[in-house]
Amino acid sequence: MKKVAVIMGSDSDLPALKPCFAQLKALDIPFEAHVYSAHRTPDACAAFAAGARENGFGALIAAAGKAAHLAGAIAARTTLPVIGIPVKSSTLDGLDALLSTVQMPTGMPVATVAIDGAANAALLAAQILAVSDGELAGRLDAMRREQTDAVLRKDAALTVED
Amino acid sequence: MKKVAVIMGSDSDLPALKPCFAQLKALDIPFEAHVYSAHRTPDACAAFAAGARENGFGALIAAAGKAAHLAGAIAARTTLPVIGIPVKSSTLDGLDALLSTVQMPTGMPVATVAIDGAANAALLAAQILAVSDGELAGRLDAMRREQTDAVLRKDAALTVED
Amino acid sequence: MKKVAVIMGSDSDLPALKPCFAQLKALDIPFEAHVYSAHRTPDACAAFAAGARENGFGALIAAAGKAAHLAGAIAARTTLPVIGIPVKSSTLDGLDALLSTVQMPTGMPVATVAIDGAANAALLAAQILAVSDGELAGRLDAMRREQTDAVLRKDAALTVED
Amino acid sequence: MKKVAVIMGSDSDLPALKPCFAQLKALDIPFEAHVYSAHRTPDACAAFAAGARENGFGALIAAAGKAAHLAGAIAARTTLPVIGIPVKSSTLDGLDALLSTVQMPTGMPVATVAIDGAANAALLAAQILAVSDGELAGRLDAMRREQTDAVLRKDAALTVED
Amino acid sequence: MKKVAVIMGSDSDLPALKPCFAQLKALDIPFEAHVYSAHRTPDACAAFAAGARENGFGALIAAAGKAAHLAGAIAARTTLPVIGIPVKSSTLDGLDALLSTVQMPTGMPVATVAIDGAANAALLAAQILAVSDGELAGRLDAMRREQTDAVLRKDAALTVED
Amino acid sequence: MKKVAVIMGSDSDLPALKPCFAQLKALDIPFEAHVYSAHRTPDACAAFAAGARENGFGALIAAAGKAAHLAGAIAARTTLPVIGIPVKSSTLDGLDALLSTVQMPTGMPVATVAIDGAANAALLAAQILAVSDGELAGRLDAMRREQTDAVLRKDAALTVED
Amino acid sequence: MKKVAVIMGSDSDLPALKPCFAQLKALDIPFEAHVYSAHRTPDACAAFAAGARENGFGALIAAAGKAAHLAGAIAARTTLPVIGIPVKSSTLDGLDALLSTVQMPTGMPVATVAIDGAANAALLAAQILAVSDGELAGRLDAMRREQTDAVLRKDAALTVED
Amino acid sequence: MKKVAVIMGSDSDLPALKPCFAQLKALDIPFEAHVYSAHRTPDACAAFAAGARENGFGALIAAAGKAAHLAGAIAARTTLPVIGIPVKSSTLDGLDALLSTVQMPTGMPVATVAIDGAANAALLAAQILAVSDGELAGRLDAMRREQTDAVLRKDAALTVED
Repeated sequence: MKKVAVIMGSDSDLPALKPCFAQLKALDIPFEAHVYSAHRTPDACAAFAAGARENGFGALIAAAGKAAHLAGAIAARTTLPVIGIPVKSSTLDGLDALLSTVQMPTGMPVATVAIDGAANAALLAAQILAVSDGELAGRLDAMRREQTDAVLRKDAALTVED
Repeated sequence: MKKVAVIMGSDSDLPALKPCFAQLKALDIPFEAHVYSAHRTPDACAAFAAGARENGFGALIAAAGKAAHLAGAIAARTTLPVIGIPVKSSTLDGLDALLSTVQMPTGMPVATVAIDGAANAALLAAQILAVSDGELAGRLDAMRREQTDAVLRKDAALTVED
Repeated sequence: MKKVAVIMGSDSDLPALKPCFAQLKALDIPFEAHVYSAHRTPDACAAFAAGARENGFGALIAAAGKAAHLAGAIAARTTLPVIGIPVKSSTLDGLDALLSTVQMPTGMPVATVAIDGAANAALLAAQILAVSDGELAGRLDAMRREQTDAVLRKDAALTVED
Repeated sequence: MKKVAVIMGSDSDLPALKPCFAQLKALDIPFEAHVYSAHRTPDACAAFAAGARENGFGALIAAAGKAAHLAGAIAARTTLPVIGIPVKSSTLDGLDALLSTVQMPTGMPVATVAIDGAANAALLAAQILAVSDGELAGRLDAMRREQTDAVLRKDAALTVED
Repeated sequence: MKKVAVIMGSDSDLPALKPCFAQLKALDIPFEAHVYSAHRTPDACAAFAAGARENGFGALIAAAGKAAHLAGAIAARTTLPVIGIPVKSSTLDGLDALLSTVQMPTGMPVATVAIDGAANAALLAAQILAVSDGELAGRLDAMRREQTDAVLRKDAALTVED
Repeated sequence: MKKVAVIMGSDSDLPALKPCFAQLKALDIPFEAHVYSAHRTPDACAAFAAGARENGFGALIAAAGKAAHLAGAIAARTTLPVIGIPVKSSTLDGLDALLSTVQMPTGMPVATVAIDGAANAALLAAQILAVSDGELAGRLDAMRREQTDAVLRKDAALTVED
Repeated sequence: MKKVAVIMGSDSDLPALKPCFAQLKALDIPFEAHVYSAHRTPDACAAFAAGARENGFGALIAAAGKAAHLAGAIAARTTLPVIGIPVKSSTLDGLDALLSTVQMPTGMPVATVAIDGAANAALLAAQILAVSDGELAGRLDAMRREQTDAVLRKDAALTVED
Repeated sequence: MKKVAVIMGSDSDLPALKPCFAQLKALDIPFEAHVYSAHRTPDACAAFAAGARENGFGALIAAAGKAAHLAGAIAARTTLPVIGIPVKSSTLDGLDALLSTVQMPTGMPVATVAIDGAANAALLAAQILAVSDGELAGRLDAMRREQTDAVLRKDAALTVED
């Protein structure tokens, strides 16, 4: 199976990414995690992105906050699908990171998920790999059915106390 | 090659989608276009999404404005990657559509592109198909190089008039 | 009397709904509470909404956060009045839920109340039932007079300390 | 059948309300239209709202822009359901009117529809009256089915030109 | 000297108003404080405002949160200057209250101060009374000079520690 | 009677101020208009504000757009009431000017009116002068009654065409 | 004198930059203009920035819209001062470009000017060069005095027509 | 070497400025810190700014919150580069300070950094001084390389725990 890369702009983003790693592990998807900054390590970031397809990656996840350029900087160096996670920081509630990630110019899409949407980034990467991997698609469908059942069980168990 | 579906919530979104169709054609990617509303035709919408993988689709693009639920409603019925285009309408400059499309709950990612980012939605769909299609990846890389060259030519030709 | 349904997208919304249940109980309005997700249990959600009028409901209340599609998804399946409560989540202070709930397309109204406005959702449901129920209307008027008196008592008791 | 009142804060809101009148007429719902300002004619506004239930009204629609207090001022004087239409004015794209209409304090709900959502306000009023009027409910269901069919026809006819 | 009235929409606004009372006391300006709600006690609110000029008031201060209609409702009943304090509540950081207070229609100004700007509301009321009261103007000028001196002393004492 | 000063940051604000001048003339309030920029002519601006009380002014109106510092700069130099008009410019719909005008620090209130609320600024100035001028208060009350009558006439004449 | 570089992300930004070029010419500051995209020509962009100090530049101006990464991408490759101009595009009124430009992470400042603030970007570049160039500082001071005089002349000529 | 001035509108801004002082010290740049308020000490503020160039300053940093006029008021009195730090206060998450600082009118640029971006303000000041100071430029380049190395070391050490 192709691998997924999870790239964070700073190791302070690590806690926000835990649900991403957990989701990838739950789906048995091989991944690598890296700290690359669009601004502090532009060369390492560019080199990693440029070589990602040859190195066996099928999707790249990038998480950053504030003027979140990381996903865009990676998207500029590869034609692999790039998934952006806008990370909420101490001001503006993540709106700055959302707009910096999603409002990309024509020619350079970034597949943006919700602010702090780390688990969904992993799922989206899995969905992308599953386009050509029926077995993984099956696992995603099974996980989906479990989600449905979990909600139905919660509904059945719901009690509104006085 | 797997197909791409382009679904719009209303045929009034057709003009906003022209760059999407043009991009898909330029890349020779087979696609179908549909008008399905998350609210007016929920059954048709659900049925299409639920059958999309078996019917040979590899990525689904959904475009809607205002309280843009279309991409999310489709994502709820398939584990294929769903790409959401928030469409600007007469108020709020597309911010409502952006937030309604991107802020999806855990378990149901929507790969959101920029407001009115129809061309990028097509490119993202192509990038997803290209994960397992080296020939298409090659075409994307070539298109990327042409973009680079076009900017370099513009730079060389730039004159700032008095 | 017709019943009110209170539907939450996740049982994590239960605390935000307590004032809704309390208000319905204070007015002796029969209600059912359910956990149905527009995305995780779309069929159960649709089935419940489609059958609500025959099953004796007069108004449906839906509470959800982020890209809050629940009220809209219910509104798509019934012509009963649907009341939407945008729930504040960890980012954007509920603005995403408000816009996702209120900005519905023509043909599918959602009667939206304030962010986290659970008590008002219950009151609005009561007002809707009271249109054809003079006794309930009387109870609402009495409650309103009590509210007025409570404010007047607070005004009479107000002391500004040095 | 109970009547609907449509109240606008200024006759400059009349164009924005045309879809509301058209929808009410299409559903054969009796209605009265008034120009009452929460600020310029507070007494007339209060008197109308206070007497609305006795005068045979079942739902009140209020449309206003900017610091849109009209729906709230009416809601303060009646326990009938009050539907608020935030009207877009020359600045802030209707966000001011939306927040002024929807963010009502506990005890005074306003059923808010989309910015400039005049048609939906009429539909919501019809839905409220239809709770106790099976015939009107039938007309709403029929209109809904026509909407569905119209979209399906548009989908069938859709052609993406080169 | 004419009196100032300080009106709050709910006694929960009392803490936010403490700096207002403190400032009025510091300037020896006579004032009354009231709890009147634009929605819960519209008659008491209107009666107070309508009689305010005859009852010896020179400026009215109104504080409210969310869809803050209080200042506007008072302004509708008097031609005395009305000062509005938008109060921050649990969502939207006071933006809803600010827009609901300041965006008044032509003919009904509300002199709006900053979100939670209670002290400045008191100062503005004092400035209004001081237009025809040279002695009060003198006290305001003295207070201003003290403010200036306090900043200059802080500047002189500033040390940036290692 | 004391005079009103109307100060604009740039003569490009003149059209936005026409309703202000018209309102002041309609109320026979003496006024002076000036172009003073907080940034380009800080000394002239400061000198005018500092001398305004001695020169017979009772209220100062300042209109500016973008990072609208004019009202605040004037408020820093006088204890007369300063009224701020946030002027909408080519971006951000006046939100920048609104926040720059209204969010003043403690000690320096600016009585802010709506974005482009020039007529209301004039009315507020008149209300301030009328605190000690019963004749002007009478004119304001008469104008208010005319406004009420105009709305009532419009209501009586309202026809909703088919 | 050191040179200024003016870099635009797309030649569609050329009209927005005209005031920048005009201001630089008016101050006789040597400059070069380039079209380099952070995403389409990342290598050319990086190479230009990395060599800018050796090539005689003293300040770099970057203009871009939407998810405006250009200024940040340049700042990542040089320690020269980088001035960012957020350019308004078809949605969100430039707020996306402003946040993407100004909210830079620690270590990589971008000196951001107003949305579409091209003339001020040129002036800021001139101010930076003038820190070590007394003659240029003198020209800036003279230009400033002319601005002051122009406003004073406009004030003297101001007439408010009936 | 020319000095940097760090001016805060209130000593309550001192904690927000600590990273600024630390950065200046780390780079051995001489600086002075002052408390000057645009509103409370306009004369001291103007005098300091007007004399800054003669007194050996090369860049001025101004930090303020809410309607943050300080940087603009300083920019009005000098043609030295002025760097503005918008400081987050108790409401609106710093958006008010950002817009009040960055949206300056033509002729008066303020080099704005991120909300609470104190360290970057210091770096930007250093970059400005380094335009004519090769030794300082060398220190900035060295610091940049250390930043790069620190990220690369973090990447090498990154472990994603189970």
